Amino acid sequence: MFREQIKVLDCTIRDGGLINNHYFTDEFVRAVYKALSKSGIDYMEFGYRSSRELFPPEEFGAWKYCDDEKINQVIDGIESNLKISVMVDSYRVKEQIFVSADESPIDMIRAATYVKYMDSAIELIKKCHDLGYETTCNIMAVSREMEPDLVEGLDQLAKSPVDVVYVVDSFGAMYCEQVEYLVKLYGEHLPGKEIGIHCHNQQQLAFANTIEGIIHNANYLDGSLHGIGRGPGNCCLELLMGFLKNPKFNLTSVLKVIQDYMIPMRKEFEWGYIIPYMITGILNEHPRTAIAYRQTDDKDKYAEFYEKMRETQE
Amino acid sequence: MFREQIKVLDCTIRDGGLINNHYFTDEFVRAVYKALSKSGIDYMEFGYRSSRELFPPEEFGAWKYCDDEKINQVIDGIESNLKISVMVDSYRVKEQIFVSADESPIDMIRAATYVKYMDSAIELIKKCHDLGYETTCNIMAVSREMEPDLVEGLDQLAKSPVDVVYVVDSFGAMYCEQVEYLVKLYGEHLPGKEIGIHCHNQQQLAFANTIEGIIHNANYLDGSLHGIGRGPGNCCLELLMGFLKNPKFNLTSVLKVIQDYMIPMRKEFEWGYIIPYMITGILNEHPRTAIAYRQTDDKDKYAEFYEKMRETQE
Repeated sequence: MFREQIKVLDCTIRDGGLINNHYFTDEFVRAVYKALSKSGIDYMEFGYRSSRELFPPEEFGAWKYCDDEKINQVIDGIESNLKISVMVDSYRVKEQIFVSADESPIDMIRAATYVKYMDSAIELIKKCHDLGYETTCNIMAVSREMEPDLVEGLDQLAKSPVDVVYVVDSFGAMYCEQVEYLVKLYGEHLPGKEIGIHCHNQQQLAFANTIEGIIHNANYLDGSLHGIGRGPGNCCLELLMGFLKNPKFNLTSVLKVIQDYMIPMRKEFEWGYIIPYMITGILNEHPRTAIAYRQTDDKDKYAEFYEKMRETQE
Repeated sequence: MFREQIKVLDCTIRDGGLINNHYFTDEFVRAVYKALSKSGIDYMEFGYRSSRELFPPEEFGAWKYCDDEKINQVIDGIESNLKISVMVDSYRVKEQIFVSADESPIDMIRAATYVKYMDSAIELIKKCHDLGYETTCNIMAVSREMEPDLVEGLDQLAKSPVDVVYVVDSFGAMYCEQVEYLVKLYGEHLPGKEIGIHCHNQQQLAFANTIEGIIHNANYLDGSLHGIGRGPGNCCLELLMGFLKNPKFNLTSVLKVIQDYMIPMRKEFEWGYIIPYMITGILNEHPRTAIAYRQTDDKDKYAEFYEKMRETQE
């Protein structure tokens, strides 16, 4: 599969940061930036630009805020064509300040929102667009939205300056059929916009669903190193590179950073295919109950967890 | 997804046995049989019916041979509608003896073959069919066969009494597009036969590719508990049950046997998403080089392994 318009975004530091409150070391972030710069990947997402008023700095690492100075410090001296993105939860915005894009290391700002907060996303997108940033809207949890509400949101976005709108499978609940349906629906309602896809791996479908997105013309693809991300994690960047077969990609540098950093890190945090997340995935539920369960002594009592989860749905 | 004709086969003991030379304990095999009997799964595969002359009994456990008496002993006293299958490598047959199906606990015999040994598979299928067994042909390694050879084999099978012909992704190299193509090709050349699908998980696509098979009318589906199998393993049975949503399935009993047996077992053997297997998958190579590499001190030097493997292909 090779299509020139395809752009790949690595969300290792951003989505992985949800596991450890964004406390990655500078050494690790720098190693990832270096490896991705060599790999031919298009974007690297460093974290969130969050408000310190809403999220006190004593509770979170640097990548919860992604200050321009911090990014500049970490990437200093590394030769790179890699673009840099940060995410903003558009419904939890306070004093976040963005300078004009030409004064910032950041190239793209991704507005994450739920359908009901679409207005906040559009406001943020307009502001960032006017400052010269590329913008995306990542509409979360769409597997539980009613279609008219979603379509209304898409139609609003169509009139906004947003560059890319992402289909996000927050709960890892979708099969290829739902991905096909949504990517086509977004395409119809967003003429002239690019469609992106961000999948989670509750059911080992993050990579497959990303391929499904590609087949139906999604051109912005999210992955992370060895699939790191909260709970089951994301589409594995290394798998995506293998599929895309774009000669600009260098898989070796990505494999090297995985062996040097991700394998040791998995002894510290868990992510990947783990049954309680699989259960929330098949039940189309937020992973939070599984995350909490994995902190208890019963963490491997899968049958019991499944029965409990089912009861809450009946 | 619910289609009455769909049959699910668990190959935990058979494909899992490739990791430990078929030395599973009777207690474990019995626990699996009991759990699957409660789960509504259709078939359980116990192992291979191999020749003791070709595979000396001092080197292998009981499930390399699957004697009728051994199977009877292990299932004794368990209430069950589960059908039982065994696999035979049709090109490595010597003195294997089958009694008439009505005197055996075995319901189905699956002939595994490469395209070039198709005649041996058809001979075995005829013999077993005449003894009253259900039969399948599992054509391995088709991702490296030339199409005219494969089609010739399918056309031979069409004239045989075989009940089911499986698309087998031995190298875990296929994407949904290849699965769609082959399942349709098999369907066209095998009128009146059922199509099956058996996937490997090198690229985290075993489950997704099984779904792709279902969409294109494959009705016989292989899975294993927590995906156990050689190297990256198979499609996870628990994921397949979640997708199929057939009310006859009971996922709880499957989750229970996973928590009681598979999680502890994974401390003893490795299987699942492991980068060297991912590399053989994307390169469409037999996993044997990755299996060997995982036995060395270099087992986590992914970048080096990838470079070496690529050299062998250039």
